[in-house]
Amino acid sequence: MGEPGSHADRIARAALTWLAEPGNRAVWTLVQRAGAPATLHRLLAGDIPDRFLRSTVAARSAAGDARQVAETALREAGRIGARLVVPADDEWPARVDALAQLEIDSGGRVNRDTRPPLCFWVRGELPLGSALDRSVAIVGARASTGYGDHVTRELAYGLAERGWTVTSGGAFGIDAAAHQGALAAGGRTVSVLACGVDRPYPAGNSTMFAGIAERGLLISEWPPGSEPFKHRFLIRNRVIAAATAGTVMVEAAARSGATQTMSRVLALGRPAMVVPGPVTSAMSVGCHEVLRAHPQARLVTSVADVLEEVGRIGEYLEPAPRGAERAHDRLDEESALVLEVVPGRGVATPEELAARARLDLRTVLRRLSLLEAAGLVVRTEAGVALAPRGG
Amino acid sequence: MGEPGSHADRIARAALTWLAEPGNRAVWTLVQRAGAPATLHRLLAGDIPDRFLRSTVAARSAAGDARQVAETALREAGRIGARLVVPADDEWPARVDALAQLEIDSGGRVNRDTRPPLCFWVRGELPLGSALDRSVAIVGARASTGYGDHVTRELAYGLAERGWTVTSGGAFGIDAAAHQGALAAGGRTVSVLACGVDRPYPAGNSTMFAGIAERGLLISEWPPGSEPFKHRFLIRNRVIAAATAGTVMVEAAARSGATQTMSRVLALGRPAMVVPGPVTSAMSVGCHEVLRAHPQARLVTSVADVLEEVGRIGEYLEPAPRGAERAHDRLDEESALVLEVVPGRGVATPEELAARARLDLRTVLRRLSLLEAAGLVVRTEAGVALAPRGG
Repeated sequence: MGEPGSHADRIARAALTWLAEPGNRAVWTLVQRAGAPATLHRLLAGDIPDRFLRSTVAARSAAGDARQVAETALREAGRIGARLVVPADDEWPARVDALAQLEIDSGGRVNRDTRPPLCFWVRGELPLGSALDRSVAIVGARASTGYGDHVTRELAYGLAERGWTVTSGGAFGIDAAAHQGALAAGGRTVSVLACGVDRPYPAGNSTMFAGIAERGLLISEWPPGSEPFKHRFLIRNRVIAAATAGTVMVEAAARSGATQTMSRVLALGRPAMVVPGPVTSAMSVGCHEVLRAHPQARLVTSVADVLEEVGRIGEYLEPAPRGAERAHDRLDEESALVLEVVPGRGVATPEELAARARLDLRTVLRRLSLLEAAGLVVRTEAGVALAPRGG
Repeated sequence: MGEPGSHADRIARAALTWLAEPGNRAVWTLVQRAGAPATLHRLLAGDIPDRFLRSTVAARSAAGDARQVAETALREAGRIGARLVVPADDEWPARVDALAQLEIDSGGRVNRDTRPPLCFWVRGELPLGSALDRSVAIVGARASTGYGDHVTRELAYGLAERGWTVTSGGAFGIDAAAHQGALAAGGRTVSVLACGVDRPYPAGNSTMFAGIAERGLLISEWPPGSEPFKHRFLIRNRVIAAATAGTVMVEAAARSGATQTMSRVLALGRPAMVVPGPVTSAMSVGCHEVLRAHPQARLVTSVADVLEEVGRIGEYLEPAPRGAERAHDRLDEESALVLEVVPGRGVATPEELAARARLDLRTVLRRLSLLEAAGLVVRTEAGVALAPRGG
C-alpha cells in the first residue's frame, strides 16, 4: 500500500493535483519526502505548514472528497480510453522532472509554483515517454498571421517527416497549425491541454483533437472534467517547455503566453528557438523581444536550423535520462577534443580552435561554454586560454 | 615641403590612392613610416618590396604620371566645388583610422587591404568629421522589397530627425531608401561612393545625389573621374563600416555586399545591427545569416533599438577620438559600479548585479565583457565572480 505506482499512489497523485493546482511547490516537496499517499493524508488532516496551501485545500475539500474525485476521474478516464501516468510508470516522460530545479526570479505564484507534474492524464495509444523523447514544441499566438501559420506548418511537417514529435497546446493559430502540419506529414503530435482530456478546448478544434487522439496524444495534468481556466494555461506552459527537447516560438505578441513559455525554456537551459518576422508585424514583436533580451535564444529560419539545435545540443542539455550515460560520454568526447587544441601558452580564437579540432564553430562555442563553466578554460576578448592551474 | 597637410602631402596622398587601390596595406605602412611624399617618391622610383604592389604601380605608371593625375584631379575637384580632405585636416573623420587595426582572417586581397583611407574627395558643405561623428550607416540589398524600403525609410527618417547623420552607399534599393528617408526629415546624409564624386553612380539616382550634395556629403577615396569598378564597392564598404558609430543592415541576400560590410563592422567591434524579416523572403536570408552566425550582431526593430546601441555603446567601443578622454572616463565609471557589486565571495547572476548596480541588464552584460577582458571578473554558468587575485 502506498508503493510508487500502486493504486494508492495513483489516486493520491490525482487527488493532490485536484486539491492544489499542478506545480505547487509545497505539495511537490512533501511528495518527494513522504510519498503521495502520506502527503494526501497529511493535507486532508489539515496538517499544512504553508498558509496559502492550507486555505486552498480547505476550499477544495469543501467542494468534494479528494479521493472520491480521483476515483471517479480514473473511472471516467477508463470509459473514454484515457489512462493515468505516474512517475513510477515506464512511460513517464523523465524530462519534466527538470522542473524540480527551475527557479524563476520574477515574482508571482505562477513563477513560484513550477514544480514537476505529479501525474498525467493521457488519451492516445503512444507511450507518453517515447512520444515526448524526440519532441520539439512549437508555440505561438492564437491571432497568428498567414505568414506565421505557413511557417509553422512547414516546420511541423518537416520535423514530423524526420521522426520528431511535434508538441504544442491546443489553441487556434500557431498551436493548430503545428498539429496540422505534423498530422499532414503522417507524423506524431502531442497536445498538452489545460483542461480535461475528455473535453479538449477549444471546441472549434474538435476535429483536430480527434485526429491527435488517434495518431498522437492528448495529455493533461488536470483530471477529466476539468475546466480550462485562464491561469491553467500559464501553469501548463511549464510542461510544454520541460517535456520537449526544445521549443520554437513562431509568432507572439509582446509579453504573451508564448513568451512566458519561452522564459521557462530559457530558465531550463533548453534550446529556445525563435522565428523572426517583419518588424512591422505586431505578431512578431514578442519574437523579436525574446531574441533581443536573451542572448541564449536562437534565431531559426528552417527545419534544418531547428534540428541543428535539438539534434545535437538538446542531447546533453537535457537532464540525463534514467540509466542513460551516453549523452554525457558524447559531451566529454567533443569537449576533450576542443580542450586538446587550446594552446598550452597564449590564446587562440574560437575560429582557430574550430579549424584545429575539425569541428564547426558553433559546436566549438558551445563546448567552450561548458569548458569555461567547468573552470578548464578562460575566455577573454583576445581569445581562449587554458585556465591557470591550482588557482 | 612634405609636411602633413601641405600641398605636397595632399598631392602625394591623391597620387598614391590612384597608383594602388585604397586600403593597400603596403602603401599605408610606408606612409605611416615615411610620410606620403617620400612614399610616393619611393614607389615612383620602383623601390617597392611588395611584388604585387610593384607590378600594380608599374601598370598604373604606364597609364599616366601619378603626380600629374593628382594635380588634374585637384583642379577638377575645385571646378565642381569638391575638396580633398587629408588626415592633417581638422575635418578628418578620426574613426576611419580604426581600420589600421582591422584584421580579417579569411583570405583574399579585399580582406587584406583594409587599411585606413589616405584621403577623401568631398562634395558638399558640411565638415566631413562632424557630419560622420554622430552617424549611423544603413546598408542592404539593391533588389530590396517594399518591406525593406519601408523599414529603411522609417529608420532613416527617425535617425535624421534626432540629429543623426545617415550614411550609406549610393545604390538603388536600401541605400536609396536610407538617403531618401533622411532627406525627407530634413536631415543630413552622407553617400560613400566607389567612384569619383563628379559622377556618382548609378546615374538613375542623380536627382538624389544632387539633393545629397546640397544638404549632405558625397565622398569618395577615388579621385574625380574614377569609374565604379565592381571590386571598388567591396573596398569602399570598409569605410562605411569604420566611419560610422554603427551599421544597420536592413535586407540582404546571402553572402552579399551588405553582409561583407557587416563583417567589417563586426571585426571593428562596432555596433552591428540587423533588421529581421520574414524567413520566407530571400532578401532577409543574409540578415538572418548574420544574426545566427554572430552573437555580437544585434537584432533591431526600431529607431529606439538603434539609438540604444549607438547612443550608449557606440561611444566607448569606437577608438577614442583625438584628444578626447571622456568616453573612457565614462566607461570606467559604470564598469567600476558593476565591479563594486560583484560579491567578495561566491557568484552573482548578471540580473542580480543589474539590480544592485541599478543599471539595466544590457549595460551590465557589456561592462562584464570588458571587466572579464581586463581580467577583473570571471564568468561561469553559475554566475559572475571576482577573478582570483595574483593567479
